[in-house]
Amino acid sequence: MGTTVIKDIKIVEVSPRDGLQNEKEIIPFDKKKSFIEKLMETGVDEIEVGSFVSPKWVPQMQDTDKLFFSILPKDGIKFSALVPNMKGLERVMELPPQHRPKKLAVFTASSDTFNLKNINCTVEESFDRIRPVVEFAKREGFEVRAYISVAFWCPYEGKIPPEKTLYVCEKLIEMGVDEISLGDTIGRASPKDVYDLLSLLLKKIKPNMVALHFHNTYGMALLNSFIAFRDFGITTFDSSAGGLGGCPFAPGAAGNVATEDLVFMFENSGVKTGVDWKKIMEAVSILGIPLRSVISKVLGKG
Amino acid sequence: MGTTVIKDIKIVEVSPRDGLQNEKEIIPFDKKKSFIEKLMETGVDEIEVGSFVSPKWVPQMQDTDKLFFSILPKDGIKFSALVPNMKGLERVMELPPQHRPKKLAVFTASSDTFNLKNINCTVEESFDRIRPVVEFAKREGFEVRAYISVAFWCPYEGKIPPEKTLYVCEKLIEMGVDEISLGDTIGRASPKDVYDLLSLLLKKIKPNMVALHFHNTYGMALLNSFIAFRDFGITTFDSSAGGLGGCPFAPGAAGNVATEDLVFMFENSGVKTGVDWKKIMEAVSILGIPLRSVISKVLGKG
Repeated sequence: MGTTVIKDIKIVEVSPRDGLQNEKEIIPFDKKKSFIEKLMETGVDEIEVGSFVSPKWVPQMQDTDKLFFSILPKDGIKFSALVPNMKGLERVMELPPQHRPKKLAVFTASSDTFNLKNINCTVEESFDRIRPVVEFAKREGFEVRAYISVAFWCPYEGKIPPEKTLYVCEKLIEMGVDEISLGDTIGRASPKDVYDLLSLLLKKIKPNMVALHFHNTYGMALLNSFIAFRDFGITTFDSSAGGLGGCPFAPGAAGNVATEDLVFMFENSGVKTGVDWKKIMEAVSILGIPLRSVISKVLGKG
Repeated sequence: MGTTVIKDIKIVEVSPRDGLQNEKEIIPFDKKKSFIEKLMETGVDEIEVGSFVSPKWVPQMQDTDKLFFSILPKDGIKFSALVPNMKGLERVMELPPQHRPKKLAVFTASSDTFNLKNINCTVEESFDRIRPVVEFAKREGFEVRAYISVAFWCPYEGKIPPEKTLYVCEKLIEMGVDEISLGDTIGRASPKDVYDLLSLLLKKIKPNMVALHFHNTYGMALLNSFIAFRDFGITTFDSSAGGLGGCPFAPGAAGNVATEDLVFMFENSGVKTGVDWKKIMEAVSILGIPLRSVISKVLGKG
């Protein structure tokens, strides 16, 4: 007797991974578990629960295996996890099948400089790391998402030529990736940059294979999301509850667009998300980390 | 030998009036004068220098007459001032002609509740106050702008029916007003609200008579500005250097959209403003009030 929720767009809630991995504080396991359980009640479609990365690199993600072992997704919710390499994939496979995330995410970038600083390999070299993960994951029946960081602008190389990002997308799709998440990692994209990239990309790639991952650093995330939805028919948007994660490039500035801000804008524009933005804020309050969303400031909770 | 600057939009810099009248601190005359002189070097088209309101009501504006007496606008820049009533207009006329602002601004709102709390009269009653000011000002050759507060949303009455705001506009235009500035006073308008109002309004009113005055409270000011320009051809935008003025309804939240944020967005979208956003930030630094713009946080200056 479930009710069908009609949605125009899909929200991928990235706070437990992309958000918390950029927070200084390490959240205790029980709190993080409660947070994810609460997020499941907000109406989001997907939750990126964690990352099967080495705890030495990212101590915030050390409990990812335990989280997947302890929580099963509710009906209608998809869990995903970041898998940087084959070693990470082995950890996924060690979980009982019903506890494995349905979707795995690999990552690279549109700029060599960024990739070298971030994962110590060029973009081309990253394909060699990613390929076996994607092939294995697809064989085992996982959906696979690929993140492309700095898809619009790079903090080191400036504006990324759209052709470069298209090239990276095509290589990833050749490997078998189902979905590409285009990251505006420094929140620098303008509507023009969104036009430049999407008008090129969508000549080759279907809009339902593309997710957008905007940061609100320059205050343009809502604008870019609206444009991407209305003018290009993109319907998958990544966001982080409470704007968790901040901006690693400019402390104090906004990072990931806050889920509650994105939902508020879309819902007030007549675009159905199925998400309750107040519940998103309640979920974050479990963590005890200050909310960084615009709405939280309006409500005196920021 | 002046150079012609091609602009797609016109920025009305409202910080010396709308910004500073909502700041707690009263800025000493010399600082304010330097601020306005610096603003003249930024490329903005109009500067709202002050308000001929009683200093008892708004002590921050007590030096408006002296400011007009002390500064003349540079070539290509228009000075304006708020004139609440005939008494204010008399003060304008006491200035030597070359020192008078070229443009005078009257104000009302789209909601009776808001108007009663703000200026102690209903919307209809406000027309009786405004009419003699507009008639006299037009006879004397001034341009006249009318502000309509809460043109989209009212903090007390909720969403304002677009027909209500259209009615207020038409009454003001009948009086002889040259330009209407539609205020989203609580920063609550969504793109849908912008569509609802502008698609109705522009059936009756030319787009070049309409200015938009967005607040960034819910983070949608840049989005709404972009939509208003691109989809409706509105080319006049009010903004406040540094986001001065804050939000009287939610302390800590954003108020007037910051000029530097608006300019950065438009310029990066290929829309020419003729304004140097870095110089806007430099101007604010004269005042010693913290910048509230999004960009100031990116640059670590917020």
